[in-house]
Amino acid sequence: MATPKCAANYAPLTPILFLERSASVYPERTSIIYGDLRFTWKQTMERCRCLASKVAQLVSAGQTVSVLSPNSPAVYELNFGVPMARAVLNSINSRLDARMISVLLSHSETKVLFADSQHLQVVQEALRMWLSSSDAPAEKPQIIVIEDRLDAGSYNFQTFLPGWGELVEYEEFLASGDPSFPIQWPLDDWETIVLNYTSGTTSRPKGVLYHHRGAYLAPLITVQFWGMQDESVYLWTLPMFHCNGWTFIWGMAAIAGTNVIIRNVEAKAIYDSIVKHKVTHLCGAPVVFNTIANAPPQDKKKLPGRVFTITGGAPPPPSVLSNMESMGFTVLHSYGLTETYGPALVCVWKPEWNGLSAEERARIKARQGVATVGLQGLDVLDPDTMKAVPRDAKTIGEIMIRGHTVMKGYFKDEDATRKAFEGGWYHTGDLGVMHPDGYVEVKDRSKDIIISGGENISSIEVESVLFKHPQIMEAAVVARPDKHWGESPCAFVTLREGAMGVNADTIVAYCREHLPKFYVPKTIVFCELPKTTTGKVQKFKLREMAKALPQSVASKL
Amino acid sequence: MATPKCAANYAPLTPILFLERSASVYPERTSIIYGDLRFTWKQTMERCRCLASKVAQLVSAGQTVSVLSPNSPAVYELNFGVPMARAVLNSINSRLDARMISVLLSHSETKVLFADSQHLQVVQEALRMWLSSSDAPAEKPQIIVIEDRLDAGSYNFQTFLPGWGELVEYEEFLASGDPSFPIQWPLDDWETIVLNYTSGTTSRPKGVLYHHRGAYLAPLITVQFWGMQDESVYLWTLPMFHCNGWTFIWGMAAIAGTNVIIRNVEAKAIYDSIVKHKVTHLCGAPVVFNTIANAPPQDKKKLPGRVFTITGGAPPPPSVLSNMESMGFTVLHSYGLTETYGPALVCVWKPEWNGLSAEERARIKARQGVATVGLQGLDVLDPDTMKAVPRDAKTIGEIMIRGHTVMKGYFKDEDATRKAFEGGWYHTGDLGVMHPDGYVEVKDRSKDIIISGGENISSIEVESVLFKHPQIMEAAVVARPDKHWGESPCAFVTLREGAMGVNADTIVAYCREHLPKFYVPKTIVFCELPKTTTGKVQKFKLREMAKALPQSVASKL
Repeated sequence: MATPKCAANYAPLTPILFLERSASVYPERTSIIYGDLRFTWKQTMERCRCLASKVAQLVSAGQTVSVLSPNSPAVYELNFGVPMARAVLNSINSRLDARMISVLLSHSETKVLFADSQHLQVVQEALRMWLSSSDAPAEKPQIIVIEDRLDAGSYNFQTFLPGWGELVEYEEFLASGDPSFPIQWPLDDWETIVLNYTSGTTSRPKGVLYHHRGAYLAPLITVQFWGMQDESVYLWTLPMFHCNGWTFIWGMAAIAGTNVIIRNVEAKAIYDSIVKHKVTHLCGAPVVFNTIANAPPQDKKKLPGRVFTITGGAPPPPSVLSNMESMGFTVLHSYGLTETYGPALVCVWKPEWNGLSAEERARIKARQGVATVGLQGLDVLDPDTMKAVPRDAKTIGEIMIRGHTVMKGYFKDEDATRKAFEGGWYHTGDLGVMHPDGYVEVKDRSKDIIISGGENISSIEVESVLFKHPQIMEAAVVARPDKHWGESPCAFVTLREGAMGVNADTIVAYCREHLPKFYVPKTIVFCELPKTTTGKVQKFKLREMAKALPQSVASKL
Repeated sequence: MATPKCAANYAPLTPILFLERSASVYPERTSIIYGDLRFTWKQTMERCRCLASKVAQLVSAGQTVSVLSPNSPAVYELNFGVPMARAVLNSINSRLDARMISVLLSHSETKVLFADSQHLQVVQEALRMWLSSSDAPAEKPQIIVIEDRLDAGSYNFQTFLPGWGELVEYEEFLASGDPSFPIQWPLDDWETIVLNYTSGTTSRPKGVLYHHRGAYLAPLITVQFWGMQDESVYLWTLPMFHCNGWTFIWGMAAIAGTNVIIRNVEAKAIYDSIVKHKVTHLCGAPVVFNTIANAPPQDKKKLPGRVFTITGGAPPPPSVLSNMESMGFTVLHSYGLTETYGPALVCVWKPEWNGLSAEERARIKARQGVATVGLQGLDVLDPDTMKAVPRDAKTIGEIMIRGHTVMKGYFKDEDATRKAFEGGWYHTGDLGVMHPDGYVEVKDRSKDIIISGGENISSIEVESVLFKHPQIMEAAVVARPDKHWGESPCAFVTLREGAMGVNADTIVAYCREHLPKFYVPKTIVFCELPKTTTGKVQKFKLREMAKALPQSVASKL
């Protein structure tokens, strides 16, 4: 070939480049704010080089380094420092229990574990489980303790597991590193950069592998469509262990913006940070938006400017949406999975919708939306025939995705990978419809369709009606086995504080007004909803509860 | 490999994806405005598919299709339609003469030529030359005439070269195409998408090859750093044949913005378009900025909002800069070459500079700047040792670039490609310095350094002083052979209309105030400056003129 790739015109795509550029172009600009601590991009780069130099002494290229920590500057640094040593970072959900953590440490073949001092108890338990299991590693993993600056001195470094010796502290570890360590660039941009386990059942952990190519493209595309610039200030209300903070860890380095990191995502800390640091952007699951919208009046503050937000995981409820927008937040609804580097679909807003009623706008914004330019394909397909469903907003199919920002595959699980990619599409497992205007709307997780009398009921549609009830705070709907109909919709409802005059009958009557008859829940249970550590309602638990309801809890109708 | 590339998680990067997405997500949004003509993204997609279906009948994958036309919707469409047939588009500078065009048609092995009716005379001449040359093609190329809508009916389609038969008109050609033609995607993103000849000498045409990968990345990066969004309106004051409009042809499809195309880049048309279509962004060479800044009062209009502009090719003179900024334009200075997909360096503006004097700000903005995230490397190197020069803003070296948005290579010229990429860097041929803050500043084209008495003189520095003279409109400085000093700086100067009381003596006196003694031009010539078709001053012509000056035009001093 007359025009081959060479060092001048080709390099593997990698987000490490973002950090290198920001350190060079914006050396003095603030990269990270954490309490009273501030770093510049130059310092962040030097700290990441120190980290990489030390990691490179402990592991070989391709080996796994894990981290278990709330959001902190250290976690930010690990997302660059570990790949800069050509090792793979595994970010563990810090809300998991010891059993699940031991499964992940084992499956990921963790060589080094960075753990926040707050989590050392659970780490000890997890290690005990792992080391005494049949999967016990030949060598004990190295533990580095991240002593939180806002909570320093709380942990006694000599009281770890017997025989482990004194633990090394993160800052101490970095201090002996080399701030001019040469970056170990990936040899190919298909090389793995991180490993993220999906939340879900523990029986068979699914480790999603990201490559450097996707970790360059996904954040670049996200900061572009969100209009982020070098003066953007991003507040970390999203856990960094979620798809590497929906890839914003790398994205913030791409634009050389400022990261404002908070350890506890509470209303006061959010509003205080927004005002103090002039936050321009933040993301979060619906639970975070609830926190912001329903903050006690004494915690709320007037925004210093417009704050752009992205939410995902579930459509923002209309009341939260209007509440947030009236305060000066702009809410963008996005959809994605761990397998798609976070945001893959965006509910792109069109100016012609501005004149619609608040309700109508919320309905439009509840749709998951359209593909980013990182995807080569997005469609709703019949999973049996792999043919597209009609664009009628009614016919349910499986949402399928393909393109540049789809995972490399599952770690050590060729079967699951093959199945996920069957027919040349990534099967999301989410059921949805395609609207005539090309917007996708999720109707249910595959298992969340309720089949009653041969008719499909989307539990999400029932929920969205319940959410609109002024006295209902939260609701989730699952199938309850029903002798007559096969299944019937069963609603679990949490009322707002101080709700008055609401009972099962009034709710059923309300639903009858707003839903097709067969959609109306036949059972209403008032309780707190069980949730995962990431705030998702655990429908499988509700299904078990629905199944176990005594017959005396009669079905209505 | 357990996690291989497959259709679900891998596809070659290509800007065709941008158009496909915009047509799907924004089918009804205006893609193109041209006089009274408007297209939507859906229509643009259909027209490009028609075009591709027809092109695919005429050429095979990898063959060249050329276009010679001023900016027009057809040129926009060719930039997608030709690659969608896996053919290669060669955009010919529409200001070239017949001889140069014949050289390019021959070198590019053009199979099909799309030519605007305005250019048919020069096309006939060029074809006559090519077909009668020793490089004459075995088959005559196919000619498609783009009949301009704003100027329709001006050309008689039966009066082309004898024996050529009746020519096909572009709209007619499209009309018989297939609006649902399946896109022929590149098999690999290293595949060539376009061929752009660099301006310059005709002796050995250099055809720069772009790959699909770069044509996806470069515009994505540019629209990101420029903050372009789906509501951006881009005015085409830049020729589309310049690096595919600095890749904005593809970039506008990436964001689904609106292209406002004007045929003649004149002050009235620019201001009228800005007001009528609420233009938000435009680019141009310095000459365009002069047109905007120095427009006659009756053509100037109040801007409807802030207009973001990028200029390149030469630093914006301070007077133009302050003039533009006072009217509400924001000016970004960028630097690039055909070999770097247009903009590769950006003079990133930092807020801490806002408080400086206008002069100081202009001086800072005159620097070419820092790398975009499309580059893996940017430095000023000593071309002999390939070592970086010190970051002292003084030591001159060659500006070198490497990364994702550097060309594939030169077409049919392995020697030139090897030379350009020597040592793993693309050698720009431009000489510059590295400032302590990492900003690159061009000091001269390699040949534009004047060596006088053993000291280097940067002609650009002399010019920048001359530009600040209130009565000087334009100036260029070259070396004049000098018996005593070897070379001496010779300034060619165009005065502003109505300039009074200026002569060679006053200019020399003025230069003495602002430059080191040996920098002061020893000769001043008042004249219009010779320029290339793209508006660059032709220094080689000035050098010839300087050499030919009779001794009676005495050197000053």
